[in-house]
Amino acid sequence: MAAVKLEILKKDTRTKARLGRLHTPHGMIETPVFMPVGTQATVKSVSPEELKALGANMILSNTYHLFLRPGHELIKRAGGLHKFMNWDGAILTDSGGFQVFSLGDLRKITEEGVEFRSHLDGSKQFLSPEKATEIQIALGSDIVMAFDECTPYPANREYTKKSAERTFRWLKRCKNTLPTTEKQALFGIVQGGMYEDLRKQSAQEITELDLPGYALGGLSVGEPKEMMYEVLDYTVPLLPEAKPRYLMGVGSPDDLIEGVMRGIDMFDCVLPTRIARNGTAMTRFGKVVVRNATYADDFTPIDPTCSCYTCQNYSRAYIRHLIKADEIFGHRLMTIHNLHFLTHLMKEVRQAIAEDQLPEYRKQFFADYGYKK
Amino acid sequence: MAAVKLEILKKDTRTKARLGRLHTPHGMIETPVFMPVGTQATVKSVSPEELKALGANMILSNTYHLFLRPGHELIKRAGGLHKFMNWDGAILTDSGGFQVFSLGDLRKITEEGVEFRSHLDGSKQFLSPEKATEIQIALGSDIVMAFDECTPYPANREYTKKSAERTFRWLKRCKNTLPTTEKQALFGIVQGGMYEDLRKQSAQEITELDLPGYALGGLSVGEPKEMMYEVLDYTVPLLPEAKPRYLMGVGSPDDLIEGVMRGIDMFDCVLPTRIARNGTAMTRFGKVVVRNATYADDFTPIDPTCSCYTCQNYSRAYIRHLIKADEIFGHRLMTIHNLHFLTHLMKEVRQAIAEDQLPEYRKQFFADYGYKK
Repeated sequence: MAAVKLEILKKDTRTKARLGRLHTPHGMIETPVFMPVGTQATVKSVSPEELKALGANMILSNTYHLFLRPGHELIKRAGGLHKFMNWDGAILTDSGGFQVFSLGDLRKITEEGVEFRSHLDGSKQFLSPEKATEIQIALGSDIVMAFDECTPYPANREYTKKSAERTFRWLKRCKNTLPTTEKQALFGIVQGGMYEDLRKQSAQEITELDLPGYALGGLSVGEPKEMMYEVLDYTVPLLPEAKPRYLMGVGSPDDLIEGVMRGIDMFDCVLPTRIARNGTAMTRFGKVVVRNATYADDFTPIDPTCSCYTCQNYSRAYIRHLIKADEIFGHRLMTIHNLHFLTHLMKEVRQAIAEDQLPEYRKQFFADYGYKK
Repeated sequence: MAAVKLEILKKDTRTKARLGRLHTPHGMIETPVFMPVGTQATVKSVSPEELKALGANMILSNTYHLFLRPGHELIKRAGGLHKFMNWDGAILTDSGGFQVFSLGDLRKITEEGVEFRSHLDGSKQFLSPEKATEIQIALGSDIVMAFDECTPYPANREYTKKSAERTFRWLKRCKNTLPTTEKQALFGIVQGGMYEDLRKQSAQEITELDLPGYALGGLSVGEPKEMMYEVLDYTVPLLPEAKPRYLMGVGSPDDLIEGVMRGIDMFDCVLPTRIARNGTAMTRFGKVVVRNATYADDFTPIDPTCSCYTCQNYSRAYIRHLIKADEIFGHRLMTIHNLHFLTHLMKEVRQAIAEDQLPEYRKQFFADYGYKK
């Protein structure tokens, strides 16, 4: 039996959205779900208990970072990543591919894998499909992502095709490295850039491997939003209905809703936590740049309608003071708010699917948020 | 009726230690007590709820820092410091004197007060006894400290005498600025450096003002520990028994115990929180420099006998990883541990006084800690 299985509770009649339960070795996750990012075995500034309290039961962590520091062998000796970081919820690990390819001139790609220099100490390192998978086996994540190339945008057809085909060959090597287990599930990644025929080719090849889940990569990498939605429109229907679908690196509120409507079950993004530490809050009514001088004397919460710990107890003026003074507690309060905002948004989205109100919910949300659509 | 009153529950028979309850407008504090420092309206990295959970019910905050940023008038408009920072426990504010005098060449002392340049933007600023007191009135702290000069060490007799006499003249101006209220209590500060006759003169003058509490300043400023203990030996008996006694800026475990045995009721220090963020833990068995390589593969807690959140859930290896990676959560876990260590130490000290076991407790603690005494 596969480690990870999606139970579909309901299919929306007017959109491609699905309401589901993702069963993992570390608990059941209601889908569609947004996964906070815990790059270095910690979701920056917040505790596991706080994550649970704000409704996050599944996080993403980064193979590249943990491989370099503290090292996957150390985490294995600690009893795996869950135990190391005191997190009993589900964990998805990326493959390190995205980070390695982002190194630009510091990396060299061959059929075997990618040679690169560590951003920490400049040391020469190597990641391959086998190695990236072995690292994730050592980490013990519930979902292991295949080692792929996240094709940049823009990229010409020839490069995109070559890259997607290599990604597929690499996926087969990942699958050989991670035999089917009840503890870890391998997800394949559909690439193909913004080319419909290449996306189709990639989706067809990859789904033939009958993996426990599928991701869409190479999106939200600088292309116009409408282009991403179009890729989702023609690619998602090629993926098997019964398997979870994960849109990598997507986390703005509008993209989450548009993704769900196109049949996506899982999302992750550093955006909410990153902008939080910089003093920008996400709210139902648009972004609030708390560090702006206009909030210096504002003793109201970030969002008066928000039920998070931050909004229940602290004012914009106080949080602005903390952020200006570079106080850790400011980063914490902002992170809690933004993560609560997205987990709460996904909860409302699930509720809307359950009540056959998703398009209406979308319309109201976009109006409140101030999106011009 | 005074805002702050000490109820003495028991006097130790073999030492000068006292067990008490400090009644404040924001709750009762068991004494002797260690106060964590929340410089900029936050005890760095931890929440008010975490402070309460680890046993801290009274904190110190800094007039100098809050005056410069975000400004005491803003905090007053927020409803006072307690409301601004969501802390319903007691707050003692220092007067800003220590920070201003520490500025060295950037400040100029006159009888009127101290002119100085802000460390934030270089702007010209002025603090006087009246101004420092008015700021603390705006902040609404439970205990207001008099604006004094913390005489440096070493300092010659002539300078020390002149400085202590000015501190006394300033104290009278502070008292005129803060009339007796039920909301805020003014504490005077005994100075006089390491000179017995000057300490006596200062203590006699200051106690004649019949203030709700007295502090000892100008100690733990670089002098040998034995010298500080000697000053306590001859100064503390000059202070009225019924009033709380506060030893400013002291927070190492041995100094806390030695201070209690000499009749001190209150302490504060940035040490536990500062070294925490740098990766050094205080434990019953001495310091543990968690960031050292020797702990890279150590999957035991910082202190296996410790009951704090950090030690109950995280290993030295994990915390070391977080500190090396400069992760906020590492600072948080270390801060929680160190503050828990000191609040727990004071709890044990109070228990020892209650059970007539303070000298024995001291002996055992020093043996465990590895002090050579």
